[in-house]
Amino acid sequence: MKVIMVGGVVVGPKVSARLRRLNSEAEITIIEKGSLLSYGACGLPLYVANLVPQLDGLMRTSYGVLRDTDFFQSQKDVNVLTQTEAVKIDRAHKKVFVRNVVTGVEETLDYDYLVLATGAKPSVPPIPGVNLGQVFTLHRPQDAQALKEFIKTKKVKHVTVMGSGLIGIETADALAGPRLKVTLCEAESQVLPKLLDGDMAKLVERQMEGQGVDIRLSCRVKALEGDAEGNVCRVQTEQGTIETEAVVIATGVRPEVSLAREAGLMIGSTGAIKVDEHMMTNDPAIYAGGDCAEQLHLVTGEPVYIPLASTANKQGRVIADHMMGISARYAPVEGTSVLQAFDLNIGRTGLGEAEARKRGYNVVTSVSSGLDSTHYYPMHANITIKLIAEQENGRLLGAQVCGVGESVKRLDVLATALKFGANVRDLIDLDLAYAPPFATAIDVLIHAATTLENIRLGVAKAITAEALVSRLQAGEKICLLDVREREEVAANPLSIEGTMVIALGELRERWEEVPKDSLVVTVCGLGIRGYDAACMLERKGADQVVFLQGGLSVGNAYFDQV
Amino acid sequence: MKVIMVGGVVVGPKVSARLRRLNSEAEITIIEKGSLLSYGACGLPLYVANLVPQLDGLMRTSYGVLRDTDFFQSQKDVNVLTQTEAVKIDRAHKKVFVRNVVTGVEETLDYDYLVLATGAKPSVPPIPGVNLGQVFTLHRPQDAQALKEFIKTKKVKHVTVMGSGLIGIETADALAGPRLKVTLCEAESQVLPKLLDGDMAKLVERQMEGQGVDIRLSCRVKALEGDAEGNVCRVQTEQGTIETEAVVIATGVRPEVSLAREAGLMIGSTGAIKVDEHMMTNDPAIYAGGDCAEQLHLVTGEPVYIPLASTANKQGRVIADHMMGISARYAPVEGTSVLQAFDLNIGRTGLGEAEARKRGYNVVTSVSSGLDSTHYYPMHANITIKLIAEQENGRLLGAQVCGVGESVKRLDVLATALKFGANVRDLIDLDLAYAPPFATAIDVLIHAATTLENIRLGVAKAITAEALVSRLQAGEKICLLDVREREEVAANPLSIEGTMVIALGELRERWEEVPKDSLVVTVCGLGIRGYDAACMLERKGADQVVFLQGGLSVGNAYFDQV
Repeated sequence: MKVIMVGGVVVGPKVSARLRRLNSEAEITIIEKGSLLSYGACGLPLYVANLVPQLDGLMRTSYGVLRDTDFFQSQKDVNVLTQTEAVKIDRAHKKVFVRNVVTGVEETLDYDYLVLATGAKPSVPPIPGVNLGQVFTLHRPQDAQALKEFIKTKKVKHVTVMGSGLIGIETADALAGPRLKVTLCEAESQVLPKLLDGDMAKLVERQMEGQGVDIRLSCRVKALEGDAEGNVCRVQTEQGTIETEAVVIATGVRPEVSLAREAGLMIGSTGAIKVDEHMMTNDPAIYAGGDCAEQLHLVTGEPVYIPLASTANKQGRVIADHMMGISARYAPVEGTSVLQAFDLNIGRTGLGEAEARKRGYNVVTSVSSGLDSTHYYPMHANITIKLIAEQENGRLLGAQVCGVGESVKRLDVLATALKFGANVRDLIDLDLAYAPPFATAIDVLIHAATTLENIRLGVAKAITAEALVSRLQAGEKICLLDVREREEVAANPLSIEGTMVIALGELRERWEEVPKDSLVVTVCGLGIRGYDAACMLERKGADQVVFLQGGLSVGNAYFDQV
Repeated sequence: MKVIMVGGVVVGPKVSARLRRLNSEAEITIIEKGSLLSYGACGLPLYVANLVPQLDGLMRTSYGVLRDTDFFQSQKDVNVLTQTEAVKIDRAHKKVFVRNVVTGVEETLDYDYLVLATGAKPSVPPIPGVNLGQVFTLHRPQDAQALKEFIKTKKVKHVTVMGSGLIGIETADALAGPRLKVTLCEAESQVLPKLLDGDMAKLVERQMEGQGVDIRLSCRVKALEGDAEGNVCRVQTEQGTIETEAVVIATGVRPEVSLAREAGLMIGSTGAIKVDEHMMTNDPAIYAGGDCAEQLHLVTGEPVYIPLASTANKQGRVIADHMMGISARYAPVEGTSVLQAFDLNIGRTGLGEAEARKRGYNVVTSVSSGLDSTHYYPMHANITIKLIAEQENGRLLGAQVCGVGESVKRLDVLATALKFGANVRDLIDLDLAYAPPFATAIDVLIHAATTLENIRLGVAKAITAEALVSRLQAGEKICLLDVREREEVAANPLSIEGTMVIALGELRERWEEVPKDSLVVTVCGLGIRGYDAACMLERKGADQVVFLQGGLSVGNAYFDQV
């Protein structure tokens, strides 16, 4: 059996390794256009940030061996042709034509199975100037090397990042610092538009601004302009001109499907190669996986394009198994994605609120904040969880997390629950690990779920910071009641004029001071005291009282707009 | 509606808070025998370890307010009687007789609903000397205070801890250090016998020994002996005498059920109060929750006694909801438990291997090690995951984790998967969050699941360190083949005589050196290269070759015994 992989970064090596374990006879060949194999592309921003000192760290195994041609030959019994491009597939005769990109020598290889792992390429917008000098992308190791080298040798003081997806934000984080100012241009009205809803993105935006990033939202870049030497020096945007020394284009990636398309393989609605549940294309001798292939979304059942190394590895295993006749299906994905940037751990799984509403779901959401471990444990930090569910039955549709604390543990739990069709009651019942270093006795995820269930059933009446601010901006008369302790208020006063301050502990005596003729919004640090205060005022006969979801840990990101 | 809670630590306050939010009219009263309310008992070892400097840190809210009588009155509208003991229940007339433990004043309180949250008490073994001076338990805040004060003022140099459950191990960790030697006596043949299987416990034992703890296993304490002043000075065990300056008894807790028993309420097979899915006792006006009540185990469906603050809080919510007519059921638990000690994060969920075998399951297990995040990310550490599943269908029965790295995230995911009846294929498909700071592209949990599936289906032939060592000890001729790189072997050589060393990368040329007449066990750091080496030797015709599960990260805990 002859198996050829086109692409040597993730899927190619994974299929090869698994196949070799299952099959001692197969002739396995990897064809890779570049010179590097099996590298951790996700680590490139870490290299730019100097967190990974040597680029080849991304190409070594955890025990220090470089994953080069020799490695695959000696450790995996896999033949590798680097700097070799697959130029054409002859499906009828099961041949692939390859060309060495250095020598130009051409060759024809026979296959029984072909695996397309052609990856993705940066999606560069069709604007003038993208080919100027000092305009970078961050897709391949050499891109990262060029950017890092340039920043270092030129002592650059200002960089413009175009796009605020994962790579855009990670790059901004890698570059921004006391000696280098970053301006981030995003065409949408929020950062991370494919990852987060606007309310969660607001938390990221405030943190980035706090760390000195100049964020321009709803700011499409119209052109890049160069100096006399042909290097970029100016960015023309819908909001004006930015003088800059370099531009990083991080406006997403597109699947590399030209080889597949020319071979007559089906391309899906996402623009990536269409595959079945075995990662097989419409040609049973050809599989596709990784950044060039589409997947199905678990919640919607529809094709999505979410290229990630984690899912690519799973696909590789399915491809090898299926080739060997082992029953293996690649499961639909939840689109779980995560990044660490600006000291925040940020992620999502499933559908966002905006997506869910657009698809016609009757949606209920909660935004909750809490500590990732007990407040008396020396290490603890805040995280915010947004849950998105169906109003009728409480079925979880998606979740988003953001915070300095351990938010990704909760995200992984939510991704797991989502996989099994959990509803909010299931979340409340989860028997998660509790000890003071790891969680609070009521874990913040359980708290988020109970808050959602309280809102869903109408037990708790809550308002989001987003809704509150838009109603205040519209001029509605609203009484904000800050129920925090005096010391908390003094340390971090609420910036909205006319806010009434009565600590929760005093409210039982002073409730008559609270006005009855307008909506009252109770506010605290995380939302729990606000909830108690709202309940207490209701007991005293108030009928227009709601608490601020997530308290000031969310609200503070909004209140400077009022 | 009059509702009385007997107990003010977890369930009492939780029922009260939830009930108050749902019901403005109820008269809610908490009766607490001690003087302290709502404290984080799980934090007591942290206080002994000086990680929590002030004991009252455990009794404050995250915003700094002491949870005392005033707090409950002013913030929750709940009446609290501290230092008040419930002495008897008159179920026919719905009355509870209480007595102030200081003044002796007695009182009779009417109730519509009574919540028993009487907690647990240390289970002290019936041996001579347990009432000597300088014999401690670690159950209430004053116990922790007494122990810490004693250690500090007496400059104690040796303490004996009896019992190696969670509290025993946490206490040993809190005390052990360069100036204080700890001897740990455990009657069973392993530490953490209720938490871990023997193989996982071995990892903990080696780590503890590495940090200077003198562990005595299978070592029942027969008596404590005192000096002339009535203070303990000697521990008599089955294995001899230990001279010591203090003893901490940490041999578990028992539910405090005397009030319930005397009132004729049903006590379950675990010795704790029997409740239904609404946490209701056999008297519909009386609920029970927390450390005095039993629960059902999700996997076995049988009653278990697993007292934890996390589950107690959930129970409190169910009690309040059910009282108010809201449909609420308390779900069976997986027995998820966790601790942090000796720089390890240790936990379990579901059934252990030994328990599962005892119950007649046809069990398959895997023990896998890996990094918690990418090796090129500055912070990363090893963790080991044991999975326990059914051989026939791969259904997950339980999991155990141990490691310096982020093992608890994986434990929570496994607990969540277990809740939904996951099998190992579901685990392989989990769409977990991947980015270099949080996981490897193939997460260690996914790796554990694929390893289990490979073993279950016979694709991979593996041996556990435990089985290997017992066969070596029995004198079997086994060839150990260390396939790590030269530098790794030099830095950390395998201590078993006659081990053959051929790096995986050289094996393709040197496979003929490997003997054919005995079992060959391939060994590497984490298990993956061992697996590849075994596959390679099989391809070359070897028919007696297996790889060491978890590699040396598990094996090293065993090999010093050979």
